[in-house]
Amino acid sequence: MAFTGKRLKGLIAATFTPMTPNSDINLLVIEQYVDYLVQKQHIRNIFVNGTTGEGMSLSICERKRLTEEWVKHARGKMDNVIVHVGCLGLSDSKDLAAHAASCGADAISAVCPSFLKPANLDALVLYLKDVASAAPSLPFYYYHIPKLTGITYQIYELLGKVKENIPSFRGVKFSDVNLMDFSLCVSEYKEFDCLYGVDEQLLGALAFGAHGAVGSTYNYLGNKNGDMLEAFEAGNLQKARKIQCSLQEFLYFVFDMAHFSGSKAN
Amino acid sequence: MAFTGKRLKGLIAATFTPMTPNSDINLLVIEQYVDYLVQKQHIRNIFVNGTTGEGMSLSICERKRLTEEWVKHARGKMDNVIVHVGCLGLSDSKDLAAHAASCGADAISAVCPSFLKPANLDALVLYLKDVASAAPSLPFYYYHIPKLTGITYQIYELLGKVKENIPSFRGVKFSDVNLMDFSLCVSEYKEFDCLYGVDEQLLGALAFGAHGAVGSTYNYLGNKNGDMLEAFEAGNLQKARKIQCSLQEFLYFVFDMAHFSGSKAN
Amino acid sequence: MAFTGKRLKGLIAATFTPMTPNSDINLLVIEQYVDYLVQKQHIRNIFVNGTTGEGMSLSICERKRLTEEWVKHARGKMDNVIVHVGCLGLSDSKDLAAHAASCGADAISAVCPSFLKPANLDALVLYLKDVASAAPSLPFYYYHIPKLTGITYQIYELLGKVKENIPSFRGVKFSDVNLMDFSLCVSEYKEFDCLYGVDEQLLGALAFGAHGAVGSTYNYLGNKNGDMLEAFEAGNLQKARKIQCSLQEFLYFVFDMAHFSGSKAN
Amino acid sequence: MAFTGKRLKGLIAATFTPMTPNSDINLLVIEQYVDYLVQKQHIRNIFVNGTTGEGMSLSICERKRLTEEWVKHARGKMDNVIVHVGCLGLSDSKDLAAHAASCGADAISAVCPSFLKPANLDALVLYLKDVASAAPSLPFYYYHIPKLTGITYQIYELLGKVKENIPSFRGVKFSDVNLMDFSLCVSEYKEFDCLYGVDEQLLGALAFGAHGAVGSTYNYLGNKNGDMLEAFEAGNLQKARKIQCSLQEFLYFVFDMAHFSGSKAN
Repeated sequence: MAFTGKRLKGLIAATFTPMTPNSDINLLVIEQYVDYLVQKQHIRNIFVNGTTGEGMSLSICERKRLTEEWVKHARGKMDNVIVHVGCLGLSDSKDLAAHAASCGADAISAVCPSFLKPANLDALVLYLKDVASAAPSLPFYYYHIPKLTGITYQIYELLGKVKENIPSFRGVKFSDVNLMDFSLCVSEYKEFDCLYGVDEQLLGALAFGAHGAVGSTYNYLGNKNGDMLEAFEAGNLQKARKIQCSLQEFLYFVFDMAHFSGSKAN
Repeated sequence: MAFTGKRLKGLIAATFTPMTPNSDINLLVIEQYVDYLVQKQHIRNIFVNGTTGEGMSLSICERKRLTEEWVKHARGKMDNVIVHVGCLGLSDSKDLAAHAASCGADAISAVCPSFLKPANLDALVLYLKDVASAAPSLPFYYYHIPKLTGITYQIYELLGKVKENIPSFRGVKFSDVNLMDFSLCVSEYKEFDCLYGVDEQLLGALAFGAHGAVGSTYNYLGNKNGDMLEAFEAGNLQKARKIQCSLQEFLYFVFDMAHFSGSKAN
Repeated sequence: MAFTGKRLKGLIAATFTPMTPNSDINLLVIEQYVDYLVQKQHIRNIFVNGTTGEGMSLSICERKRLTEEWVKHARGKMDNVIVHVGCLGLSDSKDLAAHAASCGADAISAVCPSFLKPANLDALVLYLKDVASAAPSLPFYYYHIPKLTGITYQIYELLGKVKENIPSFRGVKFSDVNLMDFSLCVSEYKEFDCLYGVDEQLLGALAFGAHGAVGSTYNYLGNKNGDMLEAFEAGNLQKARKIQCSLQEFLYFVFDMAHFSGSKAN
Repeated sequence: MAFTGKRLKGLIAATFTPMTPNSDINLLVIEQYVDYLVQKQHIRNIFVNGTTGEGMSLSICERKRLTEEWVKHARGKMDNVIVHVGCLGLSDSKDLAAHAASCGADAISAVCPSFLKPANLDALVLYLKDVASAAPSLPFYYYHIPKLTGITYQIYELLGKVKENIPSFRGVKFSDVNLMDFSLCVSEYKEFDCLYGVDEQLLGALAFGAHGAVGSTYNYLGNKNGDMLEAFEAGNLQKARKIQCSLQEFLYFVFDMAHFSGSKAN
């Protein structure tokens, strides 16, 4: 499923990492998980080993084995497997990027190191360039999630700098509520895929032209969000809003139950 | 221009406070300012002495004289003059609320005290109840601006508590980027006016059903934003987005010039 | 009790503002309060209308009446009455500063406006200069409390700028845990009084040469803290530490009871 | 150099990780580095692969090779080699802990995972228990650095919970400015080593009974800080303060030069 220049659009489920009761990764259920996403939730794109997949808390070896399983079982059933390869250090990120390419992933993504942080925006661009260069054939997406990394550079400014520097750069997973920054990315950099990452207010990003959405709730609310996208694209904002509000009521309940554990319970 | 139960909709300019070179309030230009807003920007509602009007940095006496001038010159020309009466202390806020009612303001609003903060949501509701009770005939709007106050209670939860407690409560000036909270307010409390306060991403709030918008940029971009609202209400999201993006490019430049001074320069 | 160039040293109680059950200021008990501080807690300096005194939540009129009562009843019994005159706006602060001077206060202090904040350190210095100039005969102390104002300029850098600009500048009430900044103030600007404002870790500031301490706990733990200062000045660090630890255990309990209400209960 | 129950006291240099121009770890200079610390800075304890050593940005393999080199070259010359084994995930941390024990480290330490954070204090204690259990023979130190992790639990409360749960728990590297929390740890848990981690205000922690100090500046200011400790222990606070102030002036300059790069330049 090599990325053949087609744009990354629509819903992309940020997959959970199935685990055994004693917290070992459980590869045996991934095929079943893929089939559930495709058949039950009509999801054809997945973002693995991200925040929802607890990638940053897994070992490099665990992340590689997961990548291999997702790619193997998604082949022929899904359009794109995007592998999150970001770590706190450059060498691990490059290692995971090269590995993702070697086993046929469709794209890679990386969050910014957040313990020791880049000193400025240029240092971040340099880091992303290094990571992307370890898998030059794969489209690269920057994973922007200031709520967890504390890195708050304007993505609109980042995109201006990556254009000349990172040939494989394809877009951003934008997990933030600053919709002016998001909107400027969409309107000023039409060559990049702007994928929104705050599920509970996706409709706001769609209003600003979001190309797609990456999130954990599409694992179990794929159909509902698909209906919202469809209504929105058909110009029926009333219907799209109604669906999003019903999703918000559900998510308000889930968040109240301490979001994270709540999400995995589905 | 007493509030006759009609809803507060559309654009509401958060007025600047005109000042003389040595920082005294300049009441002489307010009539001219009202005419400019009505004739040049087609603005028929104003929110005075708010953040844009530097109300919190003015003395009580200055705020009262400003209120009187705005009400006097807006009479017969504008639909609503909303007076921000919030202070760091209760007695001053109640004083300004009673005064606003006495001189014919159409509604009042109050921000949450932010130096010594309420201990919890119930304490905030009690405070708002006290302020509103000083002008029981005037519709009351809570001014939510966590970026400046540090008060981050969910407004969706606040609205649930004010319903039984504050008869004159009419809605919220929502100056935050959490559109899930905003959306739940709109969908769950249809009796309240949900006015969005982050001009640069208004389109996102419109997608969630915002009734109106209060902001500083409507002082000089009233027409442009009016065109956006019109396009949006006509179902032409493409056109609405195009206008909002052009506004964002301008505001990106203004913000870069240290927002505040930039805004007053127009 | 005009400030005759002597340094401000030792314990300074940040007084509570006595209130009646319906939250009116209660001036009738201030004389009794002064006598209690002098006779029972051996406190000879007070800092009125500060954070502990809820000054920022009171009206200008209430603050003036309190100032008059504290000065009247402290006269002849105490060495110094320092009046906090800071407000969110310049005109109110200057009004309170001039009033404090007119009724015989010994010094004034002002916090930085925290709703609309100064754009940079120079703007803050200009503001303080203006406030101090409204009471040129009174020593002026900057009240640094980043936890509530969000203003985090290094005081060491502020002192470098005020030296030439504010003739009546005498020092700082330093309510922050950055002891490197505090220490550099003490060692580099020997002409200024560096008064520490985090009661629970006063011993740390004493180690860096703090001249005195302003705090709410000295209202009811004046004697105990006096013993600590005495032990410290006598070079008995062991004993000073023991006293501070016993105070910390008590304050840990008070903080657990929601600090503020806890403090007023004493 | 097995930890024979003696307390960890005095200065502990948080070592830098020597790197080649193209950012590979440079093991060849570690022996020379150990000799420099022992002979030139009179440092006999080191904390490797911590924040200063950029441990969190290195691969597991790099951290293991560094541990082996430090232990090999410190043997017979230094008293203690403490290895930071904390990672964002449990399995990696346990892997590094077991490795550190296998190659003769004297103690281990771990920071709290900071991308996906523990839900509460009990979850953190459980995590630390798991990490420590991978090297049950080695003393375990919790590395508290809220400025980078965002984890702000009171260590005084953590120590109360670890006592019964983690047999090998020996103390805390306390890299925070909350000296009340630090002081309560020292006074309430005499069985634990409380090592202070904010070099620039060490004197404040000494006043509260700090047993030792772990920091990057002891790499090149070991002698000077040694003199400060000596003066302090001899009861000469004046001299100790003078030394600390001179160190602060130097560090103020270093911090101004963007701390990190500044520190490595020495």
